[in-house]
Amino acid sequence: MAVYTEVSDAALSSFLEGYDIGRLISFKGIAEGVENSNYLMFTNKGPYILTLYEKRVTETDLPFFLGLMENLANNGVQCPTPIHGNNGEVLRSLCEKPAAITSFLNGISLNNPKVMHCNAVGSALAKLHIAGSKYKKERKNSLSLDKCINLFNKCLPRADEITPGLSDLIHIELEYLCNNWPKNLPTGIIHADLFPDNVFFENDRLTGIIDFYFACNDFLAYDLGICINAWCFENDCRFNPDKARMLTQGYISERPLKKIEISALPILTRAASFRFLTTRLFDWLNSVEGALVKPKDPNEYVARLKLLQDIEDPSFFGIE
Amino acid sequence: MAVYTEVSDAALSSFLEGYDIGRLISFKGIAEGVENSNYLMFTNKGPYILTLYEKRVTETDLPFFLGLMENLANNGVQCPTPIHGNNGEVLRSLCEKPAAITSFLNGISLNNPKVMHCNAVGSALAKLHIAGSKYKKERKNSLSLDKCINLFNKCLPRADEITPGLSDLIHIELEYLCNNWPKNLPTGIIHADLFPDNVFFENDRLTGIIDFYFACNDFLAYDLGICINAWCFENDCRFNPDKARMLTQGYISERPLKKIEISALPILTRAASFRFLTTRLFDWLNSVEGALVKPKDPNEYVARLKLLQDIEDPSFFGIE
Repeated sequence: MAVYTEVSDAALSSFLEGYDIGRLISFKGIAEGVENSNYLMFTNKGPYILTLYEKRVTETDLPFFLGLMENLANNGVQCPTPIHGNNGEVLRSLCEKPAAITSFLNGISLNNPKVMHCNAVGSALAKLHIAGSKYKKERKNSLSLDKCINLFNKCLPRADEITPGLSDLIHIELEYLCNNWPKNLPTGIIHADLFPDNVFFENDRLTGIIDFYFACNDFLAYDLGICINAWCFENDCRFNPDKARMLTQGYISERPLKKIEISALPILTRAASFRFLTTRLFDWLNSVEGALVKPKDPNEYVARLKLLQDIEDPSFFGIE
Repeated sequence: MAVYTEVSDAALSSFLEGYDIGRLISFKGIAEGVENSNYLMFTNKGPYILTLYEKRVTETDLPFFLGLMENLANNGVQCPTPIHGNNGEVLRSLCEKPAAITSFLNGISLNNPKVMHCNAVGSALAKLHIAGSKYKKERKNSLSLDKCINLFNKCLPRADEITPGLSDLIHIELEYLCNNWPKNLPTGIIHADLFPDNVFFENDRLTGIIDFYFACNDFLAYDLGICINAWCFENDCRFNPDKARMLTQGYISERPLKKIEISALPILTRAASFRFLTTRLFDWLNSVEGALVKPKDPNEYVARLKLLQDIEDPSFFGIE
């Protein structure tokens, strides 16, 4: 469950005076987003989302994220668009924390997405990549391969507590990734965290993409590798080739992949698996007993990574 | 923060097939209610609240609570009204827990209510008492004086950890309450937990009363004593006589109090203070480190009780 700041009605009223969004009707803290406090707010003009940025998001990155959301929304991506305050700013302050109001998106996230949803996600990801090319700000990936290696090294002494042999497994993986890392792939804005809980559907129609707080500039095809990890494994960690084919086919229906991207997809998907394994491992080993946010099990990504280590042919993902 | 059950989209869809409330558009877990999991849900017919009842509410009491809410709403009280399933039932099951859908109420709860809000609450409380007389089911107060004494005895060995001298203070209080407890006061349905977080306002107009999960049959004037504790002390535990006067005057504008009720108001207000001190003390001494719900400080009620122990004249509360 999300970190949660209590907002007093007086602080809220005073904050809302800085916007032209109508008269407040309702305000509820919602259990959405792990990094921030989120509130669903109604005014007589409609529903809005208020986000208070908690410590886990770097404050200096916020103008990049909010600018990106606005830019993407203006270019047809179904994502929250920040509402400008009367002073023109989208990033303001509430309860001594950075705060922003965005538009509200219909739809609910799916726990068990089906093949057709993967197709819609692939297509939406490609549209996001195309729209992102119009955004001129840049942000380095804070969880790029070299950053993940640094993070993994902090976990190394205790990695085998999770699964015996895990440190050996990752050492072998790192050697492979570093020696074979692709070059000269198309880069651009990637979402970098497009998991099912960040995608809304209404009647099986994709209605929204949220949570851009890992977005950055990186290889576009790496984002597809992340989505293969996020959407194409069943709850028992079994790979679902139909989902992968629908995901990649959905993607190329909007943005054809270059040959070098297709060839690189297996290693990019492995790298994505390593990235989520590393952060889960770190969070697991550094979790505080009784914390609000229960860390996710790293072993799910041990299973994914082991499977992906045997895949060299991109046709495994339904693309050639 | 509320206990929180994750509801899968599949379980939710199947659950909603049992209702005629339209097509699901959005579904968010909300941080409302400490005892249960609550979700704000939109369909194309409008907003609704879904509640999953967690362990702290006794399941056999749920028909009483839901029946009461429906009865009160039908009699003009601004409270959530349960939505009947297609099978006629209001209490159903989701994620292996009892579950109910209710109507949604506009408004937000106030952290620092003003004098005028106290007036509205007094009036709404009286209307609730009058409307409650039409409800025929009964429920004993599970936190009546004798039940609180049992609970306090469990805390006794460690009470002085909270404040030195607390066990003596409560022993003296209990002796007074037991020896002077009023008899033959008008009884009926009371809310029994009408704190500011359970009352919604929109533009200073009271728009809703929620959380009927302590409602029971008891002295009606005891509910007013609870509200004096809940609404008429400032954050520094200072008593605000203007708020008390507006609360009691608001109440009698709808339901005049009998002389015996007015005379009993000081002891009923003390008893209410003792009730919240006891449950806070119990929760504080029995809290689990890192629990989702942070227990509230019992010392706020030590301060209230000490002040109230000096009050014998109901005119202190603005009523004669």
